Amino acid sequence: MDPAHAILFEPVRIGPVVAPNRFYQTPHATGFGWQRPQSGAALRKVKAEGGWGVVCTEYCSIHPTSDDSPYAFLTLWDDADIAPLALTAEAIKGQGALAGIELWHGGAHASNRMTRLPAIAPRVQPALYHLPTTARGMDLEDIRSFRRWQRDAALRAKRAGFDIIYVYAGHDYLPFQFLSSRTNDRGDAYGGSLENRTRLLREMLEETREAVGDTCAVAIRLAVDELHGPSGVTSEAEGREAVALLAELPDLWDVNIAGALGNDSKSARFSEEGFQEDYIRFVKGVTSKPVVSVGRFTSPDRMVSQIKRGIQDFIGAARPSIADPFLPMKIKEGRADEIRECIGCNICRAANNEGVGLRCTQNPTMGEEWRRGWHPERVPPHRREKALVVGGGPAGLEAALTLARRGLEVHLADRDRRFGGRVNRESTLPGLATWGRVRDHRLHMLGKTDAMLYPESAMTAQDIRDFGADHVVIATGSLWRRDGMGVLGMGGAFLGALTPDDLFAGAVPGPEVVIYDDEHYFMAGAWAEKLARAGHLVTYVTPQTLVSSWTAYTDEQGFIQARLIELGVKIVTGQLATGWRDGLHTVCAYTGREGFVPGESLVLCTGRLPVTTLHDELKGMRGLGLVGDALQPSSIADAVHSAHRFAREIDGPEPFRREMAPLGERA
Amino acid sequence: MDPAHAILFEPVRIGPVVAPNRFYQTPHATGFGWQRPQSGAALRKVKAEGGWGVVCTEYCSIHPTSDDSPYAFLTLWDDADIAPLALTAEAIKGQGALAGIELWHGGAHASNRMTRLPAIAPRVQPALYHLPTTARGMDLEDIRSFRRWQRDAALRAKRAGFDIIYVYAGHDYLPFQFLSSRTNDRGDAYGGSLENRTRLLREMLEETREAVGDTCAVAIRLAVDELHGPSGVTSEAEGREAVALLAELPDLWDVNIAGALGNDSKSARFSEEGFQEDYIRFVKGVTSKPVVSVGRFTSPDRMVSQIKRGIQDFIGAARPSIADPFLPMKIKEGRADEIRECIGCNICRAANNEGVGLRCTQNPTMGEEWRRGWHPERVPPHRREKALVVGGGPAGLEAALTLARRGLEVHLADRDRRFGGRVNRESTLPGLATWGRVRDHRLHMLGKTDAMLYPESAMTAQDIRDFGADHVVIATGSLWRRDGMGVLGMGGAFLGALTPDDLFAGAVPGPEVVIYDDEHYFMAGAWAEKLARAGHLVTYVTPQTLVSSWTAYTDEQGFIQARLIELGVKIVTGQLATGWRDGLHTVCAYTGREGFVPGESLVLCTGRLPVTTLHDELKGMRGLGLVGDALQPSSIADAVHSAHRFAREIDGPEPFRREMAPLGERA
Repeated sequence: MDPAHAILFEPVRIGPVVAPNRFYQTPHATGFGWQRPQSGAALRKVKAEGGWGVVCTEYCSIHPTSDDSPYAFLTLWDDADIAPLALTAEAIKGQGALAGIELWHGGAHASNRMTRLPAIAPRVQPALYHLPTTARGMDLEDIRSFRRWQRDAALRAKRAGFDIIYVYAGHDYLPFQFLSSRTNDRGDAYGGSLENRTRLLREMLEETREAVGDTCAVAIRLAVDELHGPSGVTSEAEGREAVALLAELPDLWDVNIAGALGNDSKSARFSEEGFQEDYIRFVKGVTSKPVVSVGRFTSPDRMVSQIKRGIQDFIGAARPSIADPFLPMKIKEGRADEIRECIGCNICRAANNEGVGLRCTQNPTMGEEWRRGWHPERVPPHRREKALVVGGGPAGLEAALTLARRGLEVHLADRDRRFGGRVNRESTLPGLATWGRVRDHRLHMLGKTDAMLYPESAMTAQDIRDFGADHVVIATGSLWRRDGMGVLGMGGAFLGALTPDDLFAGAVPGPEVVIYDDEHYFMAGAWAEKLARAGHLVTYVTPQTLVSSWTAYTDEQGFIQARLIELGVKIVTGQLATGWRDGLHTVCAYTGREGFVPGESLVLCTGRLPVTTLHDELKGMRGLGLVGDALQPSSIADAVHSAHRFAREIDGPEPFRREMAPLGERA
Repeated sequence: MDPAHAILFEPVRIGPVVAPNRFYQTPHATGFGWQRPQSGAALRKVKAEGGWGVVCTEYCSIHPTSDDSPYAFLTLWDDADIAPLALTAEAIKGQGALAGIELWHGGAHASNRMTRLPAIAPRVQPALYHLPTTARGMDLEDIRSFRRWQRDAALRAKRAGFDIIYVYAGHDYLPFQFLSSRTNDRGDAYGGSLENRTRLLREMLEETREAVGDTCAVAIRLAVDELHGPSGVTSEAEGREAVALLAELPDLWDVNIAGALGNDSKSARFSEEGFQEDYIRFVKGVTSKPVVSVGRFTSPDRMVSQIKRGIQDFIGAARPSIADPFLPMKIKEGRADEIRECIGCNICRAANNEGVGLRCTQNPTMGEEWRRGWHPERVPPHRREKALVVGGGPAGLEAALTLARRGLEVHLADRDRRFGGRVNRESTLPGLATWGRVRDHRLHMLGKTDAMLYPESAMTAQDIRDFGADHVVIATGSLWRRDGMGVLGMGGAFLGALTPDDLFAGAVPGPEVVIYDDEHYFMAGAWAEKLARAGHLVTYVTPQTLVSSWTAYTDEQGFIQARLIELGVKIVTGQLATGWRDGLHTVCAYTGREGFVPGESLVLCTGRLPVTTLHDELKGMRGLGLVGDALQPSSIADAVHSAHRFAREIDGPEPFRREMAPLGERA
């Protein structure tokens, strides 16, 4: 280990328990929840095995009035919930880490679509996000019940074996709704002054400690700024004051920023490593208890700096621990160069927002621990056969690396001078530089294998046949469509239109550009931003009603739309493109009425076509495989996963397990 | 039974099996899927018990390349799937009905977010709805694999005990993607001519029959019109020709209309009972096989007319069978007046679109069969105690009816002359007349009990105390907010603003009206429509980007937005209202920039406040309960469910069961 990093491996006391080091996996969603206990336990186990000193669960509801269906959350509603959670606690503790559990009540945020119970909140108010319903205002009896639920859940969490039990007042959930005067206008002892608004939190902390504090640490997760300016909780005023009021009550402070639009888990496009520091740095000055926060930390030196400068006592991480569960161990073993750094793309957030299992761009094994038995650092050895990988983008690099790790003799060829494929191009877009880490990590790790890399090596089908490999992996990527066919539109005649490929290759559109987006991820919005910054007059047209609509799942949509508005991009929504003739001809997506958007140049972002020429020519060849965008143009995460799976299953596909409910009695 | 209805109870042969009558519950989603086999089986059992001669499952995937996560679908991927589905088949057949199963492959529609396999389609094309990915174009080997999957799934379905096995080419799914030239531009034997585009369907029908046809009927579900005009499949041209090409191959034709925007399950706001007739009436002229279709049929006379006029051989139903699983039995027993008629609100569709368990406005027991043990027609008897229900809207009516059914002495008081509460008002909005059925059914059924109804009977707290009831149920409803606080906005100063309550009470806004929607269900959009039709110049303002955005879940959003555009309503999106002063002052929901929308009158639709005055005054009284909108302003479905649950659990709340996965080995 680099001696400068030793400080990261000091044990830290948290109330009655001791964390073995400073690496703290803060609570984060997995898409597994109460319905998939074995998947959840296996995922957390890998984190603990990788050296995280504290590993926490995702949000765990304390009562059926807090039901986040259809999203995956844990439950501690009754004693039947103890055994499934004990699986996770045991999995974590068996690796020597502390197990934390985030007890949760969503208040006005809870959908209650499964339980069908009324949501509750400090006041009557429209339910948040889950329409068309209303949260009930809690009376004093409701507050007493709520406190009992927290206490009962804490006792059950202790029985399940957890070491750290949370009082959770972050992310706009119920205790935070009491804290913020934006959502608390009560006239009783729980409203009005800040002291009153923190009363519930104080009671929760005291009563949780009383219930379980003999052997369990009580942590508080608090949003110290809700990013609503002076009308809300800010780290200069009420956030700081709230911490001061409760300073010594918890055993640990887990602090962040909250509010809508994913402020706490901002993507790299909209934030730097350590972006929460300015908001949370005050906390250690106000409490003697250990402090943890997050900030997408992947650099050991920055981590050390966080500790040395007294910003926090732990290195809190959700996304970096997803991208590399073995991040702490790699630092400990002097292999920090091997860290698979989070790129901040938020595809993990998208999994949660879509209500499906966790996935990661950098770490294709994430979420596959139980059902496919995949491990991020171990692959099954394979016979020393010869593999040729054609195409060195994300999928080709991943296939080559995984095959080399399995012991094959790997040859990787790319027609370009630089390996990286699409990430070479996409990482030049505003804010996406970190996406280059997908390439950098794999190239670096390939350098530690005996794989042979051949840049500037375009290959013909005959070259490939002559190469004599046992396995040939085609990873030739994709090209943007020129026919305008998109998710919603059928295409048309778009003579002279440019595609993102043309722009990346250096084509410069005229001063007045129309960008047509019927793909809805980042590409069209990012080019709108880039061209507007370069001085073009940009009109962004889409049949959807949102700019880059799918980025709502990555918690980026609001930021992108604001940025385009502020850059003066003209936004035209609800229009399907039908053709380009002195401007973009459209029809209204709702009524079919014809429309027209003037402009000099058109950029079409509507979908991609896989590049399969080589694969088609080689069809029928023994050992031939197709991976990544060449198989299915999709996210980088999907490309990497596809290549990883191919390399794992090179001798044939393997089924995965599902957690299925027992059948019980006949109906 | 009315002899005129006898024709509905004739048995009908379907290939090797015989349906006991003409009531056919076509496949529909439940929100349970493969993860909740017992819930699904119990739901279908109730349908069969209620007299549906055929009861089908929801969509059942034949292969992991067709995974609709996060939505709930069934699976027949391997033999482990047989036992869970056998539960459902047995539950249906145990009641004397035929069990049907809808084998399904979504093609470009499949999300594959769980399996992470590439989606497949007749051609490379952007994946539909599930971004940002691409469906792979199928080669001939893929088509052979696909045919094998259908055959293998059919064999498993037979082993699970199903009588009717589907070939599913409706709703834009894979076989339909082959059929339509809008999604099939293949140059091989599966593309080009209609004969080629139906080749896959023909093979599926032949091979399914060969596999299971000795004992199972093979049904085809086909969309005969995709509502895209001459560019797509229409019932005048290729829809009709496709039926003619395949006429005698299946044992049953289940036909409908498809395409985007929920055309097959249009809400009552946008369609009449039997609205598909013009599209599907040709089918019986082209095939000798029995035909079934749907059309939200709830009137026995219309059903008889469908049969007598030769439109179809069965009465197909999804929504009417959800609203009243006992519809057939009620007709058979001469109790057609007791049918709980579907109101066509599509809250059932919303459950599916939200990825949660099925719910129904009219039938609060729907989806509760297994977990709460609720039966739509049976309630547990209770001691003859005296119950007073105050408020005769949907919740009050439901509470009174359920308590009376349980044997209590029920008194129902409403201050108005007419019982019905909010549905009296809301059913006057354009297209919502059927919502009055919520009132009509309950009033009618109350008339068969000994419950006492007191219209024009406003009650004070003292009146209620003096009444001496053992149970007092407060169901006093809700009022629209005047402070502008909504889902996204914090409110402001809106002096002189009208609410929907004012409009219902007869207030007439000025000629230029601004309607501000921060509630996002039907209300603001419906008033925009009504006022525009009445000649007002309407501007609809919302912080969302869609009109009536939540109605995307009820499959109505596209229709509503089109209607408002066509009526000339000006639509302003992305703006939060901050105040009203000579017009609506706003801020951009993205950037905070200030805006202004001119107008003479403002209508605020931002949320509702429960009316709890009586409940507050009576607090602490023994036997006091609060239900419906007075507890939690929400959908009518939630109000009815809340009241039903209260009446079921009048002696105290009862927990519900969950289907939880077994824990297996320690991680």
